[in-house]
Amino acid sequence: MNILVAGTVAIDDIRTPSSSRKNLMGGSAAYAAMASSFFAPTRIVGIVGRDFPEQHINTLKQREICTEGIERSEGESFYWSGEYHENMDERTTHEVAVNVLEAYSPKLPANYQSSEIIVLANMSPSNQLDVLSQCSSPQFVVADTMDIWIQTEGKSLDDLLTKIDMLVINESEAKMFTQTGNLVQAGRLLLQTGPQYAIIKTGEHGALLFGPDGGFFRVGAYPLASVEDPTGAGDSFLGGLAGYLAKKNQRVDFPALKHALSPATIMASFTCEAFSVERLAEIQRSDIDERLKAYAGYTQL
Amino acid sequence: MNILVAGTVAIDDIRTPSSSRKNLMGGSAAYAAMASSFFAPTRIVGIVGRDFPEQHINTLKQREICTEGIERSEGESFYWSGEYHENMDERTTHEVAVNVLEAYSPKLPANYQSSEIIVLANMSPSNQLDVLSQCSSPQFVVADTMDIWIQTEGKSLDDLLTKIDMLVINESEAKMFTQTGNLVQAGRLLLQTGPQYAIIKTGEHGALLFGPDGGFFRVGAYPLASVEDPTGAGDSFLGGLAGYLAKKNQRVDFPALKHALSPATIMASFTCEAFSVERLAEIQRSDIDERLKAYAGYTQL
Repeated sequence: MNILVAGTVAIDDIRTPSSSRKNLMGGSAAYAAMASSFFAPTRIVGIVGRDFPEQHINTLKQREICTEGIERSEGESFYWSGEYHENMDERTTHEVAVNVLEAYSPKLPANYQSSEIIVLANMSPSNQLDVLSQCSSPQFVVADTMDIWIQTEGKSLDDLLTKIDMLVINESEAKMFTQTGNLVQAGRLLLQTGPQYAIIKTGEHGALLFGPDGGFFRVGAYPLASVEDPTGAGDSFLGGLAGYLAKKNQRVDFPALKHALSPATIMASFTCEAFSVERLAEIQRSDIDERLKAYAGYTQL
Repeated sequence: MNILVAGTVAIDDIRTPSSSRKNLMGGSAAYAAMASSFFAPTRIVGIVGRDFPEQHINTLKQREICTEGIERSEGESFYWSGEYHENMDERTTHEVAVNVLEAYSPKLPANYQSSEIIVLANMSPSNQLDVLSQCSSPQFVVADTMDIWIQTEGKSLDDLLTKIDMLVINESEAKMFTQTGNLVQAGRLLLQTGPQYAIIKTGEHGALLFGPDGGFFRVGAYPLASVEDPTGAGDSFLGGLAGYLAKKNQRVDFPALKHALSPATIMASFTCEAFSVERLAEIQRSDIDERLKAYAGYTQL
């Protein structure tokens, strides 16, 4: 199956305890598409401004991602600058400029509309709904969201949740959204909002999968002794997950999702090893296979 | 093989958001011994005061734990009172009274000295060293420790670490002890202090196992939708781990430890379901087997 990834395409400035980098490619769709492209044909939809470096578009093209759906607007690109502190597990956002996203109305190119695995990476729920409404034959729809949309676009988010197959969300946001501190309860409550499946991402700890009839599975993260830049790890997780499902090319069910957690985790781990999508741009399929094998040894008896 | 559990035996007063209980049996050795007793013959060594309820000793005896090594002193029992806050993941200690532990010098009854699996549950490293020096034929020695001993008995702890096979320690304490925020680095650094194996417990997320030659394995915790009282979960983890190794009755190696993480995790989960050791006192071996089976389904592909 082929994959449509919709979300943000951004310019990021990022500081970590050991380094500082500017004018990087960021955005949920960029990371997710880079990750999924290793597994199945991937199309990306999003918007950038006149300032967006052509080299970043080329990075996507080099992974054979179809970039026809990236609209180039006259405004400035969506921009984020942030800083990671000691231990890399907390970050401060210094600046967010919505810019071209403000008036964005996603339009799918004709050849995108028959996409089968639909990845609604993190962006406004109304944009996610817009994209989904233009898909003619989705087989599986997975969406991510974040705290700001839970707080400001609750109604659109509620609507979206009734139209997707799976929600993927961070631990802190799952707790906020369901108003419980217990992750198992949170996962079950997420399923009551609409989707058949939900994943709660717990960062360096891994992820929890919830499905119908009490279905539950959990994985630990791939162990990294050093994290260069964790930005986009969750988006890459989403891309790896969608990629696996598309490549498998069968009806998506709970057993398939259990298996999809491994490539999802692996793609997140690669992203953490360098700034931006730089590690995803340099690895080969064989690197993924090697890490998948190591990962199985780290988690499977 | 049989198991010697050394550690504290305490009286706990515990408050949670939903309940408050007094005069409970607590202490690292009490939890660990209750957990290990389901798997192999268990002996406990520790000290209580004249105020220690006989019913708590009977609770241990009902699990066929040999309590001959529990010294009853004229002083007051080691006492802890604490409170868990919303989400059960943070707690405040209201009072700790060392009492009889102050001048405690562990003495192993003669029949304890040939014990094979030695569990040095959390207590002062000098007491742990005392116990170990009285063991004539240990096959595998595992020790737990906590922040206060890292801060106040560093020298004894350093000595202990060269004499044990495995250290089991909490996430926050592993980070403090190794002065790194990265768990994978922390695990590797722990091995450099002496033991061949180390486990970092990550609470509701699970545990990470480190061994020689880069050996690594990780497990997620058993999913609980409701936690009544998490006190002693880590000690029960230790007991379940030791129990598995003793029951297996073979030379302890990395593959054995990987498998031991499952019963360890399961025993911790039971402990969280009630105050004190109350859940461990009521379950049957069949409950453990049932949960182990469910757990495999939750984590193994």
